[in-house]
Amino acid sequence: MAKNRIKPRLFKGARDFLPEQMIHRENILATMRAVFQKYGFEPIETPAIEYLEVLSGKYGNEADRLIYRLNYKTGTKDEAALHYDLTVPFSRVIAMNPHLPRPFKRYQIQPVWRADRPQPRQGRFREFYQCDIDAIGSTSMMVDAEIIAICSEILTELGFKGFLIKINNRKILNGLVQYIGLDASYTQEVCRSIDKLDKVSFEVVADELKGKGFTDETIAKLKSVIELEVEQTNVLEKFGELLAGIPLAEEGLKETTDLFNYLEAMGVPRENFSFEISLARGLDYYTGPIFETVLPKHPHIGSLTGGGRYDELIGLFSGVETPAVGTSLGLDRIFATMQQLNMLGDAKSRTQALILHFPDTVMYCLDIAKKMRAVGINVEVFPNSTKIKKQFSYANKKHIPYVIVIGGREVESGLMAVKNLATGEQETITLETFIEQIKG
Amino acid sequence: MAKNRIKPRLFKGARDFLPEQMIHRENILATMRAVFQKYGFEPIETPAIEYLEVLSGKYGNEADRLIYRLNYKTGTKDEAALHYDLTVPFSRVIAMNPHLPRPFKRYQIQPVWRADRPQPRQGRFREFYQCDIDAIGSTSMMVDAEIIAICSEILTELGFKGFLIKINNRKILNGLVQYIGLDASYTQEVCRSIDKLDKVSFEVVADELKGKGFTDETIAKLKSVIELEVEQTNVLEKFGELLAGIPLAEEGLKETTDLFNYLEAMGVPRENFSFEISLARGLDYYTGPIFETVLPKHPHIGSLTGGGRYDELIGLFSGVETPAVGTSLGLDRIFATMQQLNMLGDAKSRTQALILHFPDTVMYCLDIAKKMRAVGINVEVFPNSTKIKKQFSYANKKHIPYVIVIGGREVESGLMAVKNLATGEQETITLETFIEQIKG
Repeated sequence: MAKNRIKPRLFKGARDFLPEQMIHRENILATMRAVFQKYGFEPIETPAIEYLEVLSGKYGNEADRLIYRLNYKTGTKDEAALHYDLTVPFSRVIAMNPHLPRPFKRYQIQPVWRADRPQPRQGRFREFYQCDIDAIGSTSMMVDAEIIAICSEILTELGFKGFLIKINNRKILNGLVQYIGLDASYTQEVCRSIDKLDKVSFEVVADELKGKGFTDETIAKLKSVIELEVEQTNVLEKFGELLAGIPLAEEGLKETTDLFNYLEAMGVPRENFSFEISLARGLDYYTGPIFETVLPKHPHIGSLTGGGRYDELIGLFSGVETPAVGTSLGLDRIFATMQQLNMLGDAKSRTQALILHFPDTVMYCLDIAKKMRAVGINVEVFPNSTKIKKQFSYANKKHIPYVIVIGGREVESGLMAVKNLATGEQETITLETFIEQIKG
Repeated sequence: MAKNRIKPRLFKGARDFLPEQMIHRENILATMRAVFQKYGFEPIETPAIEYLEVLSGKYGNEADRLIYRLNYKTGTKDEAALHYDLTVPFSRVIAMNPHLPRPFKRYQIQPVWRADRPQPRQGRFREFYQCDIDAIGSTSMMVDAEIIAICSEILTELGFKGFLIKINNRKILNGLVQYIGLDASYTQEVCRSIDKLDKVSFEVVADELKGKGFTDETIAKLKSVIELEVEQTNVLEKFGELLAGIPLAEEGLKETTDLFNYLEAMGVPRENFSFEISLARGLDYYTGPIFETVLPKHPHIGSLTGGGRYDELIGLFSGVETPAVGTSLGLDRIFATMQQLNMLGDAKSRTQALILHFPDTVMYCLDIAKKMRAVGINVEVFPNSTKIKKQFSYANKKHIPYVIVIGGREVESGLMAVKNLATGEQETITLETFIEQIKG
């Protein structure tokens, strides 16, 4: 073993999660899993490493450059990489496992990797968790509604108030491109420009489009549509009038109407979702409804969830057209936001009691601990027969609620000195009494 | 988006986990986490990507070659790689976070990567989960005993019978090398040879040692020690006599005696652990007790757990000597073994009921589902208004226990037709009665 000291460094854009953060994150994930399961979604996992050809060409050129490649069979068809999201690997799984039930509804909670410039303050990392739900095998807007309802239920359970799930439809955007007089092949281009409107003004986007050769007239028409200010109560009607006669747009609007009706039936409060023509979402593979959740009162916080329908992606692998819709819940973004908005309580230690001992009582203490664990109590025995004060400070540092001191006198009497660190209260009781107290 | 069809391929040596496997794996992990927490261990996570210099030089040359490198700043000090285990990253965390309590006891459950030749039948993969527990900051054998007790408790709770935790100590092995007349610098060499005795005969190891220039006398002496057949009842005594006067060996034997006493106090059955001089464990960083769990009745199954004390590894990063001990539980090996030995029950769907509907009752069904979810029932509404038979077969395929049919008549009467798919029993009841039944 090399005996030179190595500077301990964390990979740039990556993070360690220490117990306090982990306990909060695990609580958030437990909430998510419970809601996923309430709607019949089941867990799957896929490997971090995929063949590069499975991943590339799905996300658009900008994203493709952010895929981490391994130093493995470089330049061959077996070149390998770290997955960039969980949607493309899921599509591969579906193509490889035709026996799965239809609809197939899965959740998947794993890290993904992006060779991006990390911006930790903006919650942008190179390695981060995605929590995805996707449902395949149904074109019904009921499934899209279910996915959105799940997002709404999770955010509500986590304590978020005033969140807004923005909804649009790629078919409407495609129709819009026709409406402003462009060929369908410009759709991605226009979508990507619209997608930036969250971050930059229309003027910036207009300049960009001009640079790409769009006419002033086209840009003006695009502006008029995006700025069409309508109340949510009749927004679908208004866009229906505007885009009437464009079949694709009409189809998209019909889907949106169905989706909104399902959302209402599922009990999603109307103030938590809205139609937003300026929502485009960056990824190439979306084909129908698209949606993402923001906190309108905190515009500097990015989207907490984002997803949509992608009816063509799985067919790329399977050769069989397979409708699909899903969303990603940003665990890191949600955690960081909850921290920022003081929505997280104290991360309590899961240890319920610490037993302090003297050199001659250690074996007795281990026996007491054994009996406590047998009835399901989480208990620690301080491992060193060191000063009682030092053992106490360990309990304080870990926020362990009860400290039990067992010296020679306690061994003789069969009692234990129990101190509640929160109240300072101290009593001398039997093991049985303590178990009753902690269980009750 | 590239419209050419891509052959869906899984990276060699990696796996997808579908819901049935996931549900079993999650159950195993829940058992592990509960036991870890019973002993006061807390969760942490570290990134998959580490700087190569953090990882390399810790595991020995053979292992170093199996580290997956990224195609990232190759040849510079920022070259990056995927972590090979969780122990070295944990050591880095300790060095970077001196504020953590002492002792610090953590568990960590994450995938690790090894660019090995995959042998799926032997349960050897390139990407697999490690479940690690480690405790730092104490030299007391109580901590080593706790780690072993946790392994024993987990395996017992999972239903394993007749497992054996083999225990040895690197200090005893070092003493042994002196005893057979070799310089201490040969210790790793001898350990690695002994470590192979699980898989090959002594003759193979002897040939190897001869090839490395060891004398016949040395090899004969080694053989006599390894073949020293003793009962477990007085094994430590016998080795004590044999290695008397070699301080390092005496220290190792004293540690082992302490360890065994603690194990007994913690309630680990004596038949579940034994002293085995032939246990060496491959990794370079161990310094004291080493241990691994096998199933003696199934010698073809590799070890289920493996670990030991490594008092020098953390100091490589921190510059401060920090005692540490830990073990890895092989989730994949444990899962595969439980599968092989028929220890896994059916992986039940977590969905409790499926609601079948007709086109005109769908909104009513969604409302019923909403009310069920509000009281914590996992329920699905089939998303398409398709033939009832097709909806039924989905419930069968997913092993959903209850199917509820709601047609026009049920909407009118306010009742639901509920069928128990296991018994075939059918009844027409109110939502409230159904909730009572399923909750009770």
